[in-house]
Amino acid sequence: MSLEQLSATKAFDGIQSVHRHASATTGTGMTFAVFVPAHEEGETLPVVWYLSGLTCTHANVTEKGEYRAACAKHRLIFVAPDTSPRGEGVPDDPDGAYDLGLGAGFYVDATQQPWAANYRMWSYVTEELPQLLFANFPGDPKRQSILGHSMGGHGALTIGLRHPDRFRAVSAFAPIVAPSQVPWGRKALGQYLGPDMATWRRHDAIALIEDGARLPELLIDQGADDQFLEQELRPELLRKACADAGIRLSLNLRPGYDHSYYFVSTFMADHLAWHAARLA
Amino acid sequence: MSLEQLSATKAFDGIQSVHRHASATTGTGMTFAVFVPAHEEGETLPVVWYLSGLTCTHANVTEKGEYRAACAKHRLIFVAPDTSPRGEGVPDDPDGAYDLGLGAGFYVDATQQPWAANYRMWSYVTEELPQLLFANFPGDPKRQSILGHSMGGHGALTIGLRHPDRFRAVSAFAPIVAPSQVPWGRKALGQYLGPDMATWRRHDAIALIEDGARLPELLIDQGADDQFLEQELRPELLRKACADAGIRLSLNLRPGYDHSYYFVSTFMADHLAWHAARLA
Repeated sequence: MSLEQLSATKAFDGIQSVHRHASATTGTGMTFAVFVPAHEEGETLPVVWYLSGLTCTHANVTEKGEYRAACAKHRLIFVAPDTSPRGEGVPDDPDGAYDLGLGAGFYVDATQQPWAANYRMWSYVTEELPQLLFANFPGDPKRQSILGHSMGGHGALTIGLRHPDRFRAVSAFAPIVAPSQVPWGRKALGQYLGPDMATWRRHDAIALIEDGARLPELLIDQGADDQFLEQELRPELLRKACADAGIRLSLNLRPGYDHSYYFVSTFMADHLAWHAARLA
Repeated sequence: MSLEQLSATKAFDGIQSVHRHASATTGTGMTFAVFVPAHEEGETLPVVWYLSGLTCTHANVTEKGEYRAACAKHRLIFVAPDTSPRGEGVPDDPDGAYDLGLGAGFYVDATQQPWAANYRMWSYVTEELPQLLFANFPGDPKRQSILGHSMGGHGALTIGLRHPDRFRAVSAFAPIVAPSQVPWGRKALGQYLGPDMATWRRHDAIALIEDGARLPELLIDQGADDQFLEQELRPELLRKACADAGIRLSLNLRPGYDHSYYFVSTFMADHLAWHAARLA
């Protein structure tokens, strides 16, 4: 798997770079961003995976996430994958909806047509990209954590819950916690996984917890004025599931904050400090 | 002068907002961004003016500048104007060059055609926008400072040098210090101000210092790997002018950094701390 470097720019004494590679998993070219803080030759550093939300590419958090200061301080590698396959021949929602198709992979391996050939973001993010990352960057595979925003929060929670031994910390900003129960998730999972809702449970944080998945703790920040709060995000479902399952949940409801990167960037340093403490 | 609020978003416990108004100075609508940190009712706060570089609008620094954490910490209002008039009928470079016309006002009042009617960014930034700002936001006019990037560094230096009593701190990232002596500046000042180079001196930081303008001190950060360093920026000219004039210059040449917002955002917190100390 060869890696093309699209850019590499010094920032906060480290290097923010963007890369492209042919993905065997998605059958497309894939682009991702990595920040590597200053470090000694031969040293390895903890890796924080950041999964983005609907409509995003790697670029949104890279430009607006304000993570580099904290990653430089705590010496964390920060990886931002894309949110879907892209390119000629990759199917998209026929009506161009923002919540299905391009920019909306939902971190699942699609089993349905026309999605199944390319929309394999679960395997891409959990298998192919980690291999590529650890082969090419000074990351320590024994010290990984994951976080995400909105649809990416859903990705971080489901991937974290299904890999309790891989990630030492799991957190999210305004995550979709119960895709099976909300319009965004029902549309996407129905399209990608088909009508049998039993197959959705492995891609629904609440269902995973109900079915026995466990993590010691979760950190969630959620804007109280988020326009998607009541219909799509429903953090109260996570609160109940964690209480029932004995998962320590820090759920910070933040008055006045919305769903945007102004919210994410405000609490990014808090999350990275929390991750860093668990990756030390 | 009535102000239309285009957006207002909570961030870092303050409000990042964007506004539009009809400008009597430019004869166009003008857009600007303001961050106001959390504060008490009736309290006024220091105001930091940030002038952007070629091709930018208010949005570049607002999205990529990473200033809100430091402004919240030091309790500074941060104002980001646009870099030129825009809109129907506003002339642009006939070849669409990025360094003249739209996005390239160079913070002068143009005297030449076709620019003179709209390209009056000097008066807009030093007169009309301050009036509007202090009438609508809790800024303290006795505590103002100014900084900028590239062409905006040129704006900050020239405006700062010509208003030593207004600004308590003046700094810049990778500024154009001598527009009369470099291609970007010669092109823009020639077009906006005409061939008589005597009229350029009031818009050239080096010439202003040579002609007697004084500030106690200046802070400059400059990427050593900036692609525009040798041809357009030439910080050595500022070093000599400041030495000759007795201006205390802190010129930090930063190895490995380029001209981008990755560079600006890295040193933004340093500059704002330096401003805050002088605005206290």
